[in-house]
Amino acid sequence: MHILIIGAAGMVGRKLTDRLIADGALGGRAITALTLADVVAPANPGTSLPVKCVAADLSAPGAAASLLAGRPDVIFHLAAIVSGEAEADFEKGYAINLDGTRLLLEAIRREGLAEPYCPRLVFTSSIAVFGEPLPAAIPDDHIHTPLTSYGAQKAICELLLADYSRRGFVDGIGIRLPTIVVRPGKPNKAASGFFSGIIREPLAGLEAVLPVDDGVCHWFASPRAAIGFLLHAANLDTTPLGQRRTLTMPGLSATIAEEIAALRRFGGEKALRLIRREPDPIIARIVAGWPQNFDASRATELGFRAETSFDAIVEAHIEDELGGRVH
Amino acid sequence: MHILIIGAAGMVGRKLTDRLIADGALGGRAITALTLADVVAPANPGTSLPVKCVAADLSAPGAAASLLAGRPDVIFHLAAIVSGEAEADFEKGYAINLDGTRLLLEAIRREGLAEPYCPRLVFTSSIAVFGEPLPAAIPDDHIHTPLTSYGAQKAICELLLADYSRRGFVDGIGIRLPTIVVRPGKPNKAASGFFSGIIREPLAGLEAVLPVDDGVCHWFASPRAAIGFLLHAANLDTTPLGQRRTLTMPGLSATIAEEIAALRRFGGEKALRLIRREPDPIIARIVAGWPQNFDASRATELGFRAETSFDAIVEAHIEDELGGRVH
Repeated sequence: MHILIIGAAGMVGRKLTDRLIADGALGGRAITALTLADVVAPANPGTSLPVKCVAADLSAPGAAASLLAGRPDVIFHLAAIVSGEAEADFEKGYAINLDGTRLLLEAIRREGLAEPYCPRLVFTSSIAVFGEPLPAAIPDDHIHTPLTSYGAQKAICELLLADYSRRGFVDGIGIRLPTIVVRPGKPNKAASGFFSGIIREPLAGLEAVLPVDDGVCHWFASPRAAIGFLLHAANLDTTPLGQRRTLTMPGLSATIAEEIAALRRFGGEKALRLIRREPDPIIARIVAGWPQNFDASRATELGFRAETSFDAIVEAHIEDELGGRVH
Repeated sequence: MHILIIGAAGMVGRKLTDRLIADGALGGRAITALTLADVVAPANPGTSLPVKCVAADLSAPGAAASLLAGRPDVIFHLAAIVSGEAEADFEKGYAINLDGTRLLLEAIRREGLAEPYCPRLVFTSSIAVFGEPLPAAIPDDHIHTPLTSYGAQKAICELLLADYSRRGFVDGIGIRLPTIVVRPGKPNKAASGFFSGIIREPLAGLEAVLPVDDGVCHWFASPRAAIGFLLHAANLDTTPLGQRRTLTMPGLSATIAEEIAALRRFGGEKALRLIRREPDPIIARIVAGWPQNFDASRATELGFRAETSFDAIVEAHIEDELGGRVH
């Protein structure tokens, strides 16, 4: 089985790569080739599997077609310009997030014109497809009225994925990921960064800034759960999806207070003292517009699983990133 | 005021042109220039207004920019490949219905980069954005799960229209038209053709074929109502639309039996005898998948008006197409 990961150098892409190499198989079939693509060629992960690391700009003419030269059986398409950048650079956001995905779908369709070809395509969409007014728990069939260009681009790609799948050009499935916590690595400038920071930094003995109230509520899953979603999507029978090819993934709706309670259980009072409360009205306003809870029963019925407590999310972080030990 | 109509050679485009010329004004402002564009240059309607008739393929590079050279204040974008053709010719459907609209939006945005420009753009979308499962009366905020490539293309254009409007590049409004009856002209091959045919042909003393049961129900408005929608959309304050820039237009949910009752009132028994019942299981199956009723209260609250009885639809046909007289 040949697997292609587009956007392999990102956090999720690297974890997915590591997991596929560790498993050596996907859905019971041995992996015989792995192509890792990103704007900058991903580092070779070092494995006995035949791995090809490729630099590719999906929005450039011919890039998608050359990625498909080996006719991968499963394609993970994780590449995207993030929300803030897509809002700041209108043309770049549409070029990568819309044209890039459409060129990939077109390259798959054209690859199948000469000889039948219908790979499984797993596409990461976003809960940014939803916009105000929002119900308390957003159902999977809620209308898409995105409030950002990034959300619009993801919503458009969901429609393309569904139409190309309906026409039999690709076997597509889209998954809308929750906010991923605890992200490993250094603090970044994303408005959502503190959700990870207030766990990751104190557990490493470092100070973290909390810019919002304890009552703020959001929608979470661990990196480990995200990799589980991707693998499950790659193996799922897509027949029951019908024309609704994209699913909101399950997650945990939790408050900052619940995050802090979980931190206390694993890191004790000394970890709590490392959270510095520094209210930031700009971040508070951004976060206030984000959805807090979803009804992901459609995905749950199809076997997708996420953590059901913040303790489990922190535990996954300690096991996967800290070698099972807290500082 | 300069008005541009793209798709001016179609039935709705011609009626809109005639109405604008008759009015000489739009929203209280005198029309000073009228540009009529279509794949084949529309016939000059003959008026004292300065009219330019242009052949333009919106999907060709530069075509949209040259249409905008005169910086029209209001643009009606009616051009589209119809549902059946977009399904039969995948590439052509995406080229015209998606790329054509996106190139128009991009040309408007780029026109505004040098000097501020934010025209009103009235875009005709379609109830084909909705797909199964459908509620009894489809609300304006029902999720888009199109079952055709045409519907996917229209749904994507709605998202683009909303995002370009949100960013301030255009002042866009989309309207989803009901099935237009009674269409003037000759019978055509559209699966929906009989809805018009069983009124138009008998009133002209000609036979018409009815391929479905009397109980079949569908969603209608007259050509006159459609022109009313377009003019109202061109004049509407778009502020209350928020991020939901496209509205399902009001219409009449009526059965074939109600159509026939209206025909009897205007054409008598001799008209009824001209309806030949010839059940066609293929057409019956296609029509069975179509929506039957909508909750268009959002558009109604904003002042859009359609007929509320089939009698009114037949009356509009007799007045507008038959000079007020039945054969």
